[in-house]
Amino acid sequence: MTATTAKAAVMTAFNQAIRVQEYPLPDRLAEGEVLVRVTLAGMCGTDVHLHKGQLAVPLPLIMGHETVGVVEGVSGAASDWLGTPLKKGDRVSWTVGRPCGECRYCRLYRLPSRCSNRKAYGVNTPCDQAPHFLGGYGQYHHLRAGTAIFKLADDLPSEAVIGAGCALVTGVHGYEKMPLRWAESVVIQGAGPVGLAALAIAADAGARPLIVIGGPKDRLERCKRFGADVVIDIDEVKDPDKRRGIVLEHTGGLGADVVVECVGHPAAVAEGWLLNRDGGRYMVLGQYCDAGPIPLNPHYITKKELEIHGSYGSEPHHWAKALEFLRARRDRYPFHELITHRFALEQVNEALEAVASWRTGKAVICPNG
Amino acid sequence: MTATTAKAAVMTAFNQAIRVQEYPLPDRLAEGEVLVRVTLAGMCGTDVHLHKGQLAVPLPLIMGHETVGVVEGVSGAASDWLGTPLKKGDRVSWTVGRPCGECRYCRLYRLPSRCSNRKAYGVNTPCDQAPHFLGGYGQYHHLRAGTAIFKLADDLPSEAVIGAGCALVTGVHGYEKMPLRWAESVVIQGAGPVGLAALAIAADAGARPLIVIGGPKDRLERCKRFGADVVIDIDEVKDPDKRRGIVLEHTGGLGADVVVECVGHPAAVAEGWLLNRDGGRYMVLGQYCDAGPIPLNPHYITKKELEIHGSYGSEPHHWAKALEFLRARRDRYPFHELITHRFALEQVNEALEAVASWRTGKAVICPNG
Amino acid sequence: MTATTAKAAVMTAFNQAIRVQEYPLPDRLAEGEVLVRVTLAGMCGTDVHLHKGQLAVPLPLIMGHETVGVVEGVSGAASDWLGTPLKKGDRVSWTVGRPCGECRYCRLYRLPSRCSNRKAYGVNTPCDQAPHFLGGYGQYHHLRAGTAIFKLADDLPSEAVIGAGCALVTGVHGYEKMPLRWAESVVIQGAGPVGLAALAIAADAGARPLIVIGGPKDRLERCKRFGADVVIDIDEVKDPDKRRGIVLEHTGGLGADVVVECVGHPAAVAEGWLLNRDGGRYMVLGQYCDAGPIPLNPHYITKKELEIHGSYGSEPHHWAKALEFLRARRDRYPFHELITHRFALEQVNEALEAVASWRTGKAVICPNG
Amino acid sequence: MTATTAKAAVMTAFNQAIRVQEYPLPDRLAEGEVLVRVTLAGMCGTDVHLHKGQLAVPLPLIMGHETVGVVEGVSGAASDWLGTPLKKGDRVSWTVGRPCGECRYCRLYRLPSRCSNRKAYGVNTPCDQAPHFLGGYGQYHHLRAGTAIFKLADDLPSEAVIGAGCALVTGVHGYEKMPLRWAESVVIQGAGPVGLAALAIAADAGARPLIVIGGPKDRLERCKRFGADVVIDIDEVKDPDKRRGIVLEHTGGLGADVVVECVGHPAAVAEGWLLNRDGGRYMVLGQYCDAGPIPLNPHYITKKELEIHGSYGSEPHHWAKALEFLRARRDRYPFHELITHRFALEQVNEALEAVASWRTGKAVICPNG
Repeated sequence: MTATTAKAAVMTAFNQAIRVQEYPLPDRLAEGEVLVRVTLAGMCGTDVHLHKGQLAVPLPLIMGHETVGVVEGVSGAASDWLGTPLKKGDRVSWTVGRPCGECRYCRLYRLPSRCSNRKAYGVNTPCDQAPHFLGGYGQYHHLRAGTAIFKLADDLPSEAVIGAGCALVTGVHGYEKMPLRWAESVVIQGAGPVGLAALAIAADAGARPLIVIGGPKDRLERCKRFGADVVIDIDEVKDPDKRRGIVLEHTGGLGADVVVECVGHPAAVAEGWLLNRDGGRYMVLGQYCDAGPIPLNPHYITKKELEIHGSYGSEPHHWAKALEFLRARRDRYPFHELITHRFALEQVNEALEAVASWRTGKAVICPNG
Repeated sequence: MTATTAKAAVMTAFNQAIRVQEYPLPDRLAEGEVLVRVTLAGMCGTDVHLHKGQLAVPLPLIMGHETVGVVEGVSGAASDWLGTPLKKGDRVSWTVGRPCGECRYCRLYRLPSRCSNRKAYGVNTPCDQAPHFLGGYGQYHHLRAGTAIFKLADDLPSEAVIGAGCALVTGVHGYEKMPLRWAESVVIQGAGPVGLAALAIAADAGARPLIVIGGPKDRLERCKRFGADVVIDIDEVKDPDKRRGIVLEHTGGLGADVVVECVGHPAAVAEGWLLNRDGGRYMVLGQYCDAGPIPLNPHYITKKELEIHGSYGSEPHHWAKALEFLRARRDRYPFHELITHRFALEQVNEALEAVASWRTGKAVICPNG
Repeated sequence: MTATTAKAAVMTAFNQAIRVQEYPLPDRLAEGEVLVRVTLAGMCGTDVHLHKGQLAVPLPLIMGHETVGVVEGVSGAASDWLGTPLKKGDRVSWTVGRPCGECRYCRLYRLPSRCSNRKAYGVNTPCDQAPHFLGGYGQYHHLRAGTAIFKLADDLPSEAVIGAGCALVTGVHGYEKMPLRWAESVVIQGAGPVGLAALAIAADAGARPLIVIGGPKDRLERCKRFGADVVIDIDEVKDPDKRRGIVLEHTGGLGADVVVECVGHPAAVAEGWLLNRDGGRYMVLGQYCDAGPIPLNPHYITKKELEIHGSYGSEPHHWAKALEFLRARRDRYPFHELITHRFALEQVNEALEAVASWRTGKAVICPNG
Repeated sequence: MTATTAKAAVMTAFNQAIRVQEYPLPDRLAEGEVLVRVTLAGMCGTDVHLHKGQLAVPLPLIMGHETVGVVEGVSGAASDWLGTPLKKGDRVSWTVGRPCGECRYCRLYRLPSRCSNRKAYGVNTPCDQAPHFLGGYGQYHHLRAGTAIFKLADDLPSEAVIGAGCALVTGVHGYEKMPLRWAESVVIQGAGPVGLAALAIAADAGARPLIVIGGPKDRLERCKRFGADVVIDIDEVKDPDKRRGIVLEHTGGLGADVVVECVGHPAAVAEGWLLNRDGGRYMVLGQYCDAGPIPLNPHYITKKELEIHGSYGSEPHHWAKALEFLRARRDRYPFHELITHRFALEQVNEALEAVASWRTGKAVICPNG
């Protein structure tokens, strides 16, 4: 490491312009630490929410929680999460969330995604103190000991990792909680990143028919390419009863075996319960933000004998599975083609605006050009 | 059969007095049919709803869907659901719901509780045409071919069967859908018949601690006798936050592994989701009536990674399991002691009034005195 | 129906030539009965075993338990298992096994595949008495009331149904008992009909990598076409340790998540347990015949924490699923191309010989030319 | 700590007398380490095997893997596995196995019981180097950082912890892998420590009837006291067919829903598969030692549609569950009464002999008198 300082895009206040600043790079790495030179840092819709102050995160903050980079330095004998030794020059990605490993959720309930003390790079890791570089929107990223790092296979493009982003592992975790059985009918509510990920996995798991409800048109086109048998455009079919009618038509008149909510807006849940056949399974995968209570009828749960699952965040083994999926199935599910916009570090504000206005497919920051 | 007619309590209009009428008894039984002389007919809260016209049922109707009687006549070689031959004098009970066995729910989805053409004795079986006697509130009950009849073991009191009523099979079905694992912490919401049944099964399955939220006091006392470790009286602890506080106190501070809603009022569901620890399981067992939508926050499903199950009605194998439970565990869970009021056939209106005003434990009609 | 008699190939003694005989056709059909003109009758390896007297079946017998035909006559308002009305001219297939619906396996345990009184067309349905035509190797097939009949979709070739045969429903049932999770590594032991079916479903369910151990070469080629990533030729790699070495090489060094035995020879089970990683799942799908005990080490079950499943026969809903799979995925899994030999009714003995000597892909009898 | 050395019983060669030696106590504890003064050290049948050299363990060794003691010293802010702070004087026990947390079994497959680098106190932790005290048969026990320590509740007797020993957590783990459903019929093969533990959990989980096959008589008496409905004495009923007959008699004629092998001798498995009803579940819980292959018929797995599970070792959350069970249910399942023999440290050889000759209930070493 010859450079002694590096640049990062730092959010110092909500709703204000983000500024690029210089921070000193660490002069040495402690046992288990790794320093990475960032290649691609995905911008997620969550970053827009963070910038608007809609989640309580500490400032100043270097955002960016979907990152690929190249190992610049390791301390001692480091290896990736699956045991592959790491060395300078290796292309890597990593899990953003770091559970404490000691609370009751981590230990007793084996639910580290609900760890009481969870740290997430780019989300609740303020940058005012060394090692500063704890988010993706910087030239470097410092990885603390214990981070689950994954060396990327040569035939796995960095663009696929960032194109899939944190949405894919969210889907992998969700389907671990509520496994698809072979040849079930599946409705995906939502055509955004999580919807597309949930769709790709369902397609790969043999879902049939596979129906997407969402928009806009270009996203639905992409859904078709990723395996949707039927797409229902909410801009065209505005009446939920009509949308339900289309679902019934393709599922033998009774509704789908499985419905996966990937919308984020709570009203989708009310619509979704009626898309299931009785005895069907419903997954609430998109309600990450607390939008408060909405009218829902619990009578349907009893009467329709529904099974409903929630899933939050992800664990390292979901990343392992996601990365291998991206590699092995890149022809069938070309996540690497989703990146539509590339921005320099200095263009972070421009990038946030573009993502906020839904003008982009996947937007990425390239902090090193 | 020497009698040629018999009496039954017939509902001819909602909210009107029920009158005892005579109907001719069948002069012969077709293949597979059984005629039973009714001993005890339980009165269920649902009968009150039926009488108020809150469910769309056909009239005139002989209500009564929890019945024990003695075989008066069988046609040919009849046997009970488990293969025991039936003969005159056998004490029997039977499943009330008769699925069609031919619709997609019966066949493809193996979910006969959601049969599209389900018939239920005492509920949607009008009595104006022969064989008339299709509900429990009559001196006789006619059982159509294919009814799942159970010969009662000698050491199983009829009072236990009626004391448990349809609430117990509801619970057996629910826990089949969402099995309890050994030694989980369980909260039962509701101390009525379904709550008590859900409690008894949970106690028998090793739940620990086992907490009941409900009232009034005498029901909570009964819950303690049936195995509750902690009871929370809603008349005393009126603040849901305080009730939650008590649950947390007994579940390591994070909430219960399992919560079972047996209240019927939809607001219980909103309270219930917050009684679960993250990653917990919730069963909506009591929402049989459609009380319309209420405010619920689906964000909790995602964030708390809840698993939610609904269950409706029951199948014959649940009855088999319930009857054997009542027999084998009658000392530990004395359902036979729940009957507090016995009424003659002519006192049906009086009985309905008593049940409606919550003045009874379990009320039964004894049509033959 | 103008014909009054029809021909069938009748086995009157084991190991003797089968002769074509005439039997009277029924002059009327009772309620629920259907008469079918047979188009294609698949010959299964089991038929060879039956002919050799290796299973205790009653004689005289019209064999044939994989059949497609055209409805010639129905009595009254008949409909197929999924409710579609049946009429003369409809192309149909049906489930061969008919459980009694009354024994404890049918009722209490909901395991009709283990029905104590199960009848199977072409297996334990002697033909000496009317309606005679109870197997596939005849010009007509009589279907008793209650048979699960399936009207075939227009875009589902009869050849696909027979090409898949009873092997496919065996696989569908097996994976219902032991569901595949998405993206697991799977080893299929055996490249025969059951192995190919198990492979096709695993491929469709997203198994990766998907490894087949078997032979001969042409069958392995077909496995590749149906989605196998790796094939191990037992004629080339004769040492089980070497076969295991290849499996480990493709599964990260520890063994496969899932291994499915489709060989029939018991020794495959001993080899198979060592192909699983610890904590893996093993399915014994092929041990239909009782070849007696073999040396197996139960220590591996404890130490490797294996999960082992057996599955036998099938139920109507497996047929529904299988037929829809054949229809929807016929491009990806061309079961209709498996038929290599067609024989006239009079050539049944020739056909048996060809199948016994493994000279055929799938052999079919075409009783009506 | 005033003492600078302490005594331990050291095995320096297999099949030789074990000698008591002195080793220096650590003069300081590193971060996370705990020093415990041993109160009770259970002697397990495995120790007899170890002493006979039947498992490849490193020497010299202080055996003892079931231990309760009192905290003598902690370094810094130590807390037990569930977060309770630890201080001098606390009564504690701990999990013996320490998985590496880094191999594929620990990480990818979340199966730490199959960790490739697992260390187990008293089994593969030689004592020739500091900190020496890594087994239960010493006056002190050194606990490395990361050991899952459990502070014992005041109302949980140390005798209960040692009386249950490693058998109970073995059972807890087994039933996690193959959960009991409420009110199943269960056969336990074996009346030794693992059998008794498997019986107690099944009783607590509502199994009915609960049948034990084993011996000798006093162990069967204990089984009755712990909840067995039926005991079959193998010394009296020597014919496996007759034993099967008794099981069928108590399970409706078809066999048990669940059979749990806790014998250790492989022949039990062959007998056990025939004790299950078709569609039943079988757990191989006792085959820890490799006794080589035995004749087993895999045809039964297919034909009976069995589900078979293996389980090995345990994890900390099983200990948490086991300890809470011992505490809460000590009246119903009095494991604390199982200790029949107490030996001083100098009597280890005598103790081994007593255990080897089955003369004891539970034998314990009391290294500090």
